[in-house]
Amino acid sequence: MGRVTERRGVLRIRDGRVSRRPDTLVAEEPMEIRLNGRPLAVTMRTPGDDFALAVGFLVSEGVLAHPEELRQVTYCAGSVTEDDGGSYNTYNTVDVRLADGVAVPELTLERNVYTTSSCGLCGKASLDAVRTTARWAPGRAADGPRVSTATLARLPELLRERQRVFDRTGGLHAAALFTPDGELIDVREDVGRHNAVDKLVGRALREGRLPLAETVLMVSGRASFELAQKAVMAGVPVLAAVSAPSALAVDLAEESGLTLVGFLRGASMNVYAGEERIAVAEDDAG
Amino acid sequence: MGRVTERRGVLRIRDGRVSRRPDTLVAEEPMEIRLNGRPLAVTMRTPGDDFALAVGFLVSEGVLAHPEELRQVTYCAGSVTEDDGGSYNTYNTVDVRLADGVAVPELTLERNVYTTSSCGLCGKASLDAVRTTARWAPGRAADGPRVSTATLARLPELLRERQRVFDRTGGLHAAALFTPDGELIDVREDVGRHNAVDKLVGRALREGRLPLAETVLMVSGRASFELAQKAVMAGVPVLAAVSAPSALAVDLAEESGLTLVGFLRGASMNVYAGEERIAVAEDDAG
Repeated sequence: MGRVTERRGVLRIRDGRVSRRPDTLVAEEPMEIRLNGRPLAVTMRTPGDDFALAVGFLVSEGVLAHPEELRQVTYCAGSVTEDDGGSYNTYNTVDVRLADGVAVPELTLERNVYTTSSCGLCGKASLDAVRTTARWAPGRAADGPRVSTATLARLPELLRERQRVFDRTGGLHAAALFTPDGELIDVREDVGRHNAVDKLVGRALREGRLPLAETVLMVSGRASFELAQKAVMAGVPVLAAVSAPSALAVDLAEESGLTLVGFLRGASMNVYAGEERIAVAEDDAG
Repeated sequence: MGRVTERRGVLRIRDGRVSRRPDTLVAEEPMEIRLNGRPLAVTMRTPGDDFALAVGFLVSEGVLAHPEELRQVTYCAGSVTEDDGGSYNTYNTVDVRLADGVAVPELTLERNVYTTSSCGLCGKASLDAVRTTARWAPGRAADGPRVSTATLARLPELLRERQRVFDRTGGLHAAALFTPDGELIDVREDVGRHNAVDKLVGRALREGRLPLAETVLMVSGRASFELAQKAVMAGVPVLAAVSAPSALAVDLAEESGLTLVGFLRGASMNVYAGEERIAVAEDDAG
């Protein structure tokens, strides 16, 4: 397994005063995801939870939804396991083998999700692609858990407390799963926003916890279309973000029954879709 | 041309008080980049400057370095130009045609940059890929412009003042080019950090301004490997970021002669590589 942080020398300048010292930086390395031995995608990620990252990526792409669809996950050489770490040459390539009978998508899957062979690429096509591949969409917003604004108000601080690598490096994103009552289920950090979510989802699939129907997914940054897509594909009913959503993320949330909360900063928040799941607590100013 | 922002209704909650109002969100749509008519990559971006985005992406990948290598850029149908905007069905696919004799890379270029057919994927391979494809690397840090810490200290505020879409939506990244004296050359905003830089670089190539040897590139977020790569590929000598760099970004900066400044917040900053270009001003606490 690669390192999560690395040390580098830095010239520190504060109001014209200069000092030299070692600094702790977040590690970033490429990881190639292979599907049944064939290259599928490369992502720049923080080493660690590599198998979960590969599996979660495949959940987001609609390939995997049940643990029994997964036969094996290995590092490239096939002879090293996650536990013994593998060698420098193999730990950045992860091969996911599907169980017999599970459909293997086209190798250009990444593109197929968003594009067509014609000129008709647009936001609508992206929404359609999620709808046709979703296996755990959250369903109608009238269904599923309800979350109080008082609970939501506590999540940013709870997430922040668990950002251990961020505390040392200031350099990466975080994502966490909570119960509707605000109890932490799992938290991951990564240089890539999407990777942090894929790692949460991949761990959930491997432990048989999909769909994540009784959870709130909290992310440290913005709510892009792709983060909303990952929530929908894993059956997450509520996505909450510290910063702004994009218009397309809101459209996807509305279409797929996802509750989308943005600008979540203490008792201040905006609900962009699926407000039926939000219970406004009168006393959440507390 | 697509819209940069869109309006959506929002449920606004502030300390238990609820109101409904329209909100301005940043637009996000997929864009497909084609090279000589064949699909190369899809990126989620904020519409606008699409031709510059496509061209800048190809500079980052080492395909383009001079304006005469570029024959034509069109929307997919081939019959609409950037100026008249095109129709809904064509404006998200941009085709870049290279001049005769310019080498067309493999269609899986995106992957070739980072991967090999063996198991040997690692950070080192990423560094090697940049070195072998770079056409405008900044060279030795002892060369090129010098930038004073007093100038650097002003850049975050200058960037912030020009983030017009951010002011309305709170939802996107920015990148700007400055002269070594802190004069603004160009600024772009996008939901994707990489896209904002590609748009700057693509405009520069089309206007014959590559390599960007006398510039400072300032980005609103972190300095990832890929942002450092884009700086190197465009010949930018100084990259400054508001937040943390990754370890691999620092390694790339050291290897390619890029000056890398992180945590740039007023007169406080960390110099991670290429400090020869930084002139510490005694009075920059001002």
